[in-house]
Amino acid sequence: MNTDLIIIGSGPGGYRAAEHAARNGLQVAIIERAEVGGTCLNRGCIPTKAYARNAEIMDIMADAEAFGLGCLNYSFDFAKAAERKDGVVGTLRSGVETLLSAPGITLVRGEAAFKDAHTVTAGGEDYTAPNIIIATGSVPKMLPIEGIDDASMVWTSDRMLAATELPRRVCIVGAGVIGMEFACILNSFGCEVTVVEFLKECLPALDSDVAKRLRKAIEKRGVAFFMQSAVQAVGDGTVTFDRKGKQTTVETDCVLMAVGRTPATAGLNLEAAGVEYGPKGIITDDNLLTNVPGIYAIGDVNGRQMLAHAATMQGLKVVDSILGRTEGIRLDVMPAAIFTHPEAACVGLSEDACKALGTACRTAKANYRSNGKALAMGETEGMVKMLADESGKIIGCHAYGAHSADLVQEVSALICRDTTAAELAAMTHIHPTLSEMVQECAEQLARA
Amino acid sequence: MNTDLIIIGSGPGGYRAAEHAARNGLQVAIIERAEVGGTCLNRGCIPTKAYARNAEIMDIMADAEAFGLGCLNYSFDFAKAAERKDGVVGTLRSGVETLLSAPGITLVRGEAAFKDAHTVTAGGEDYTAPNIIIATGSVPKMLPIEGIDDASMVWTSDRMLAATELPRRVCIVGAGVIGMEFACILNSFGCEVTVVEFLKECLPALDSDVAKRLRKAIEKRGVAFFMQSAVQAVGDGTVTFDRKGKQTTVETDCVLMAVGRTPATAGLNLEAAGVEYGPKGIITDDNLLTNVPGIYAIGDVNGRQMLAHAATMQGLKVVDSILGRTEGIRLDVMPAAIFTHPEAACVGLSEDACKALGTACRTAKANYRSNGKALAMGETEGMVKMLADESGKIIGCHAYGAHSADLVQEVSALICRDTTAAELAAMTHIHPTLSEMVQECAEQLARA
Repeated sequence: MNTDLIIIGSGPGGYRAAEHAARNGLQVAIIERAEVGGTCLNRGCIPTKAYARNAEIMDIMADAEAFGLGCLNYSFDFAKAAERKDGVVGTLRSGVETLLSAPGITLVRGEAAFKDAHTVTAGGEDYTAPNIIIATGSVPKMLPIEGIDDASMVWTSDRMLAATELPRRVCIVGAGVIGMEFACILNSFGCEVTVVEFLKECLPALDSDVAKRLRKAIEKRGVAFFMQSAVQAVGDGTVTFDRKGKQTTVETDCVLMAVGRTPATAGLNLEAAGVEYGPKGIITDDNLLTNVPGIYAIGDVNGRQMLAHAATMQGLKVVDSILGRTEGIRLDVMPAAIFTHPEAACVGLSEDACKALGTACRTAKANYRSNGKALAMGETEGMVKMLADESGKIIGCHAYGAHSADLVQEVSALICRDTTAAELAAMTHIHPTLSEMVQECAEQLARA
Repeated sequence: MNTDLIIIGSGPGGYRAAEHAARNGLQVAIIERAEVGGTCLNRGCIPTKAYARNAEIMDIMADAEAFGLGCLNYSFDFAKAAERKDGVVGTLRSGVETLLSAPGITLVRGEAAFKDAHTVTAGGEDYTAPNIIIATGSVPKMLPIEGIDDASMVWTSDRMLAATELPRRVCIVGAGVIGMEFACILNSFGCEVTVVEFLKECLPALDSDVAKRLRKAIEKRGVAFFMQSAVQAVGDGTVTFDRKGKQTTVETDCVLMAVGRTPATAGLNLEAAGVEYGPKGIITDDNLLTNVPGIYAIGDVNGRQMLAHAATMQGLKVVDSILGRTEGIRLDVMPAAIFTHPEAACVGLSEDACKALGTACRTAKANYRSNGKALAMGETEGMVKMLADESGKIIGCHAYGAHSADLVQEVSALICRDTTAAELAAMTHIHPTLSEMVQECAEQLARA
């Protein structure tokens, strides 16, 4: 079959690119080997956010007495929470299926493999197109340690999301986004949670000032953290790790490996097309073009920014390029959120990054405990930190606390518009809202 | 006492102006007859938001079974919820008191009255300054109807917030911000709530498309609405109103008058200073200056926009003027939120306003029920509506649903930066967040 565009993978990178291309008159074949929606929808963002809301509600109920809600008791049926999660995923998956049944889009079920630079085989048929987008995503990474193949004890996030029963004790290896989100969920669900992390602080993309406070807050909720600890072995109901030179053993019923994700290139036969790739993914330029003209790679598989919305925006940008539009899509300002409880989010430079880069910056902080809305909500744990360069231009915002993803989103949009702290400080913010902390940071920076 | 600036009233207009002036070297006398913090902090935004959170938690618990949280039961101790509310107010009031004890600020306790255009008497002393800011706020408005003086039955929001026991049945007169917020709170608290409104739709500042859906959602939660109904009499446990020509009577234990607020000018002796005012408040120009040089009026008392944050921004603008700074503070873009459950918010023009003004506009809508985060949260009730002018520039956003105040805040900031729908559509929005609906609206508008 000849077509205008082949897309391999129907995650948030692929399916949005398909929609955008078809809307602009291109004939698209999109190839998917499993469920449409990719990791994000089926085994990532969405099911974890369904559980995260569950956990948040349970946390709210644990603190309900302060609101005059006493003698509270309830039963927790994990299977029913899992069913709700599956329902949410199912609803959204139907939405993607509908979207991919639009005129101009052919959804091909099967494994894709390159035959040459313009031909991909899938489901026993060859597809040929002048442009091909690889959007195959990533798979959970495993550490090369003793006992890693003990499938009864070593779980991935995929397996945790598919579980119908909760383990009593969980040891999470890795305090990145996946590890921290699961730590909060499982802790609220009543599991005994231990997190073992190689680095000094969790969530390295987050300003360490913010990350540290978030970790302490989660610790207060009952999660045990072992930082600067290198896992050595798993087995016999234990995890053994080296903690600053001292060997420590934690007893656990399962080990959740959350040490990152690996670009999914296996089976694609990239060699046939001559596409260059390495352990960090398919190599692309800033236009997401590989070394082969007409072949692009977007999302996790290029290893640039392993975020669903980065994949989407990259996909839209590639389709724009194919359509001859070179302006528009902003990949330069890339916000991110972590749906721990409380949640955290960031955009732009952190103070740590500025130091590492030798970039001069000024910082300002606002605390949730002084914000009227946060007090009224009973959500006083949190902080907003904003950064400006020497000219006063906002260059970053890192926050944790209720609605921090929304607060950072506002700042992210304003960074796209080259806004100074003084300009932001002069904009009206609704009272009483948490966004007043964004304005407060800007006021501090404008005065400095 | 001679000073640089006299401020009458220590609400969000007055105290923030005092802080800003003192920080810039002015000597400030701020006069307060009651508690610092004004209506907003003591009898308005803050205590209602404390109750609103209470109500939200109770609503979440009412829907908890879907999350696998079964056999849920609890007792509700209203006195304890009231105590928490008082605690929140107390904490914030201490904060304002600390702020007003800063160097350069003298807090004067007492009733203020003008002696002449530069002199105000309070607490038995005369204060003289070249500049005076009137920031006395507003008081609840009463309708001139039969039975309005029956103090046992007719309550204001002040009285409702001071109550230590809940009435069983409440009839709320007025479906504006105050009426709608209390309707949700009292309904969640278990009261039987009826709302009687003169106009066709609630919340007239809100796009009627959004307002109608919000009202229907609140109706589904158990609040009874009588729209286009003119209250005629109150008494003997009943409220009587004319509904499209038909007389209707509702039985109730109390009537909450929520028909708006009246500028608080009584006792100020404005005549002594020659300050012009009317029933809609003190007359000001766009710089918040009254007809008398050196006398300004900010916040509810000038009747311009009865919003706490409008008062604050007006106060900052006046202080800037006094300091000789004419640029900066943006009063042209004024967002607002209503903390019903779900909440609602708006900024800029509505479709109704565009029609009334004869302004050409394009609109786009995104529904919560199609948003991944909303589904994951179980918060599928809601809509974002965005408006752009013919050139594509964003001119308004009206929304209801979870976090809608934050979503509108982002758009509000972007309107301040003269952003087009195409520019907003090109900005990365975090997945999965509710803010993706903002981007979705922008994409629709950019395509149109």
